[in-house]
Parts: sequence; C-alpha cells; structure tokens
Amino acid sequence: MKPAARSLNTSCPIVLTMGDPAGIGPEIIVKAFGERPELLRQTVVAGDVETLRRAARQLAKVSTPLMLAEIAELSDLAAVPLGCMAVVQACELARPVVVGRVSAEAGLAAADCIKWAAQAALQGRARAVVTAPIHKEALAAAGVAHPGHTELLQALSAAHLGVSVSELPVRMMLSCPGLSTVLVSIHVSLRQALDAVTTEQVLQTIRITQAHFQRIGVARPRIAVAGLNPHAGEGGLFGLEDRDAIAPAIELARQQGMEASGPHAPDTVFMRARQGSFDVVVAMYHDQGLIPVKLLGLDHGVNTTLGLPLVRTSPDHGTAFDIAGTGQASPSSLLAAIDAALAASLTS
Amino acid sequence: MKPAARSLNTSCPIVLTMGDPAGIGPEIIVKAFGERPELLRQTVVAGDVETLRRAARQLAKVSTPLMLAEIAELSDLAAVPLGCMAVVQACELARPVVVGRVSAEAGLAAADCIKWAAQAALQGRARAVVTAPIHKEALAAAGVAHPGHTELLQALSAAHLGVSVSELPVRMMLSCPGLSTVLVSIHVSLRQALDAVTTEQVLQTIRITQAHFQRIGVARPRIAVAGLNPHAGEGGLFGLEDRDAIAPAIELARQQGMEASGPHAPDTVFMRARQGSFDVVVAMYHDQGLIPVKLLGLDHGVNTTLGLPLVRTSPDHGTAFDIAGTGQASPSSLLAAIDAALAASLTS
Repeated sequence: MKPAARSLNTSCPIVLTMGDPAGIGPEIIVKAFGERPELLRQTVVAGDVETLRRAARQLAKVSTPLMLAEIAELSDLAAVPLGCMAVVQACELARPVVVGRVSAEAGLAAADCIKWAAQAALQGRARAVVTAPIHKEALAAAGVAHPGHTELLQALSAAHLGVSVSELPVRMMLSCPGLSTVLVSIHVSLRQALDAVTTEQVLQTIRITQAHFQRIGVARPRIAVAGLNPHAGEGGLFGLEDRDAIAPAIELARQQGMEASGPHAPDTVFMRARQGSFDVVVAMYHDQGLIPVKLLGLDHGVNTTLGLPLVRTSPDHGTAFDIAGTGQASPSSLLAAIDAALAASLTS
Repeated sequence: MKPAARSLNTSCPIVLTMGDPAGIGPEIIVKAFGERPELLRQTVVAGDVETLRRAARQLAKVSTPLMLAEIAELSDLAAVPLGCMAVVQACELARPVVVGRVSAEAGLAAADCIKWAAQAALQGRARAVVTAPIHKEALAAAGVAHPGHTELLQALSAAHLGVSVSELPVRMMLSCPGLSTVLVSIHVSLRQALDAVTTEQVLQTIRITQAHFQRIGVARPRIAVAGLNPHAGEGGLFGLEDRDAIAPAIELARQQGMEASGPHAPDTVFMRARQGSFDVVVAMYHDQGLIPVKLLGLDHGVNTTLGLPLVRTSPDHGTAFDIAGTGQASPSSLLAAIDAALAASLTS
C-alpha cells in the first residue's frame, strides 16, 4: 500500500548531495552555483565541508571565488549571506580522499550524504533531493548493501512509510530537452528485460508515469508506450509480446482513464515524441529509452526516480574519475537536474 | 563463394525503380527531378510510362512541368533531350491502378521494375539501383515469393552468380547525415534477434561493412561494434553475449586487419559515432540501430543493401498510401538515396 504523495512546502530548500568526494561531484556543484548563483537561495549541499571548500578553492583560480557557509539545519539557510553556498556536514571524512580513486571512505561519505538528504525530504524539511554521482564500487567497498542511489532511496523510503520495498515500485525516467522516457526495466540483461515485459509490469510503469506527470501539473499526460519488437511486432509477425503483453496493459490503463497509446513502433515513437505528439514514452528496456535520450541530450540529460514519496533527480553521468580534479567537468547536466527538481516539487 | 565486387562503368546511368504505382513512388520521383534536374543526365527510371506521365501532369499544376522521354535501352539516355526524364517501360499495366490501394497488379508491376533494374546492374549496364518504396502486401498478392526488395535482389544476384542465397549474405545499412549503422538482423522478433548474435554473424556483419566502406573509398573504416546488453554487459553482470559472442568477433576482425572496436555501451556509441569517433556502428538488432538513425535522419534517411554484387539504395520510408496522390510526399529521402548510390558506385 502506497500513500499518496504528501504536499511539500515549496519554501523548503532542495538538498544537493555531494556524491563521491573522489569524483567530479564537488567540482560540478561549485561550478553550477558559479553559473547560476540565484540557485544558492534555495539549495543546501549535504556533504563534507572541507572537500567542498577545496573544490571551491581550486576553481577560484579561474573564476569568481565561491564562499562556503556551514549550517546545522536546513532552516538556517535564510540566515546565510547572499552568494554563499550553504553546506551541512552530512558525513565524516577523517582525511581528504585521493581524487579519482575508489575508496571505502569515499563510498561511506557519499552514502551518509544520501541518507541525510533522504531523511530531510521524507520528513518534509526538504522539497527535493538532487544527487551528484556516486561510484558503485566505492559504495560496495563501504559495505553499503544497496548497489546505487535508486535502491538506497527506495529502501529508506519504504522504511519511512513502514512498507516493504516490493510495495514501493520505482522506475527510472530519463529526460533531455524535448524527450522524456520511463523504463520498464534497467540494469538487467536484455534477455531478462524481455521477461520483464509483462502486462503487470507495463501497466505499473504507465501508472507510475501518470502519477509523476500529474504531480508536476500535467493532468492528462499523453503517454506513448513503445512496442518491444521491430514495428511493434507487425501484427504478430515478429514476436507476440506487443500484442499479448503490452497492448492489454495499454487497454487497462485507458479503461482507468489514462491517455496511453500504443504499442508504437519503437524506431519512430521517440522521433514522434520529440516532434510533440506525446509527453513521455514508456520504453520496454534500458537501451530502447537511453539511446535516444543520450543522443539528443548530450550533456543535458536528467535522471528522475519515479514512485518514491520524495522528488529525486540526478545528472545523467557518473563520477568520471578519469577527469576528476582536472577542472574539465561540465555542470550542465547537474543544473538541468536541479531545474527538474524545482519543477517537479513546485506543484507537489 | 562470393566473387569480389566487379568494376562498374561510372559512365553508366543509375536505374531508379518506380516502386508501387499506388504509392508515393511516382510522385517523389517527379519531385526529385524537379528539385535536382541535373540528376536527369545520369538516371533512368524503370517504371510504367503512363503512371509516371500522370504523376508529372499532376505536379505540373504547382511547378515546372517535367517532360518524359521513353527509351528502350539505358544506352539511349545520351540521346534524351536536356531536362527530360528518361523512362524505360519495365512493366505492364493494362489500366491505371487506384492510388492508395493494395493490388496484385501494382505489386507485379513493382516487382517487374526491380527485376529489370537488377538485371541491368548485374550485367554491368547500370552503375547502381535506387528503389522507390513497394508494398509488401501488394507483392504477396502478386504471388512474388520474396517479402521485400532485399530478398528479391539477393535471389536475383545469387542466381546471376550461380550461388545459393545462403552463400550471398546481405546486411541492411541505415544512414543519415552524420550516422551510419549496419544491422546484424532485421525483421525478426527481439528474442530471435538475441539468438542471431553469434560470433559468426557479428564477424560476417563486420566483414560486409568493411567491404562496403572500402568500396566507397574508405580504406580503413573505424567500425564501432555495439554491445547487446546495457553497458555492454558491464563485465558479465548484465548478460554474457557481449563478452562471449561479440568480443571474440571483434578480436577476429582485428586479427584480420580491420579497425573494429567494442563492444561499446549501446546507449552512448551512436552519440560517439555522430561526434565523429567512428565511421559506422554495427548494431545488434533492428531497433538498436534504427532508433538513432530515425531520430536524427528525419526525412534524410537512406537504406543501403550491403553484400550484393550491385549497389542498391532506397529511401528510408514506405509507400505512404495514406498521403499518396495528395502531393504532400517529400522527395528528400529519395534524393539522399540517389546521392548515396552515386557515391557508392563512384569508386566501384
């Protein structure tokens, strides 16, 4: 049983987690505020003050220095001087981590920041959570039982609500300017993804998609459901899943009043969505949805977790250990994620 | 055993087949020459003179009239007056077909034009074949044993060479400005497509791709091979095909001197190819390759059949029965196909 999304106070700040301190997270956070200082009025970073201060110092060589203000509670944001980045010390780091290297210390610090941010959002003190990238191996090295953000946030939310994780199904939405797609499954083999294309799973994805769009103010989102096979099976010639699993899910969604359509030929549905025919495409597997978004998104992709009792977005890239510390990382995707979080929590 | 591509005489014309006379073929042919009259000097249409004359008359209401000149042999093209469209009567049509409707008569006429064009190319009288769209149901209604262009051209070519169809493996390449992809399999279910991802099939696709690019003058094409699973399996975490079937094919291709790389993460390899990192992407299944090309191509997609002993391209769309006869069809994709055929037959 899942409760309806609770009303959030939009005067609350967004919490931005630092991500793995050995990755590009601290750098892109500082750069993001450098480009868009007005965001400082409504954002608090959950991180390690020293790590963020170092990132700010490093970038101060090439741009206007960003001042830090450590605060203890989110409600202290109002007292932070204009132009200062508010930071909550949400983790412990005994010493600076080595940039670009996997470590248990960095993984633990990243996880602690996520936990801090999640609790703030679940308790209604934060309007949304935006997460900078973490490293899965560092998380594992720190003994964190969850492989990534989504699973960790799902577990924390389920515990908060007093339900089991299976009662809180979540989906990943990937967005770029002009195209949004919600995935039925993500990190499984393509063979397993085929098995996940059931009427129940597809209908659940449509429902979660509908709920998200209603939350952000689109009362009747036009949800295009992609087929699984070439040409959506061409009437059963190339596979039966489109007819036997996907079409019934769309029919049920329509009976429940949703504006779902399809199954559409996968090779043209994203083009049509981009041209404005649909608000969102439900994709049957990871690459079906990610190929078009990555192609169009370049560095403006945003990942949103749907189905949680909190708003959570993230940039569409990883820790980029290979360029961490070199000053090359772009804050574009992070900025897009912050904007998406602001938009998604506006009408909650 | 497949003979090496034979040298073609580039002074020979291209043969452009009319396609299904009930579709948009005749209209986009007339429009294409209206936009690019210089192409008339090196192109002969294999079709029905009356059908093409009607299409030209219809369009003459809105643009400069295009005159037709019926010729008996391709070699007669030189004698055709400047600005006239040369047409060979390559089929029989007792009466005009009903536009926008499937019929056996239209299917038979379309097939006869393809056969005429194929023979001309196989015998060295035409430098390339460009095919306007046909309708699969019309072809079937006419009793043609092959479901589409590719299979028909493959059968005609195999017969010409005295080999079996299985000895003449072909692949579909889809291209748009900035991106080309060659598909391991096309019109089968995704489940069957997974089974087709074998080391042998992938290697064959790489080889056919290499041969095509060398034919068009790229001595060492940079061939990116996409993985099958998310993140190309992430080291075996999400499926084993990338490691066990695709990687060995790439290794064999490299041992044979080809510049093949991968398996690359499917969700970013097309973006990287478009940014210039590769000349072509070998895609593991229909939608993996077609989603990005359709998204970028809009109306400039070109389909090229690789592996045949003749050059064949076509526009990346169908007969569009719904708009046939209304004057709305765009010749962009057909023009791109003609340009691709000219380029592909230049260095043959």
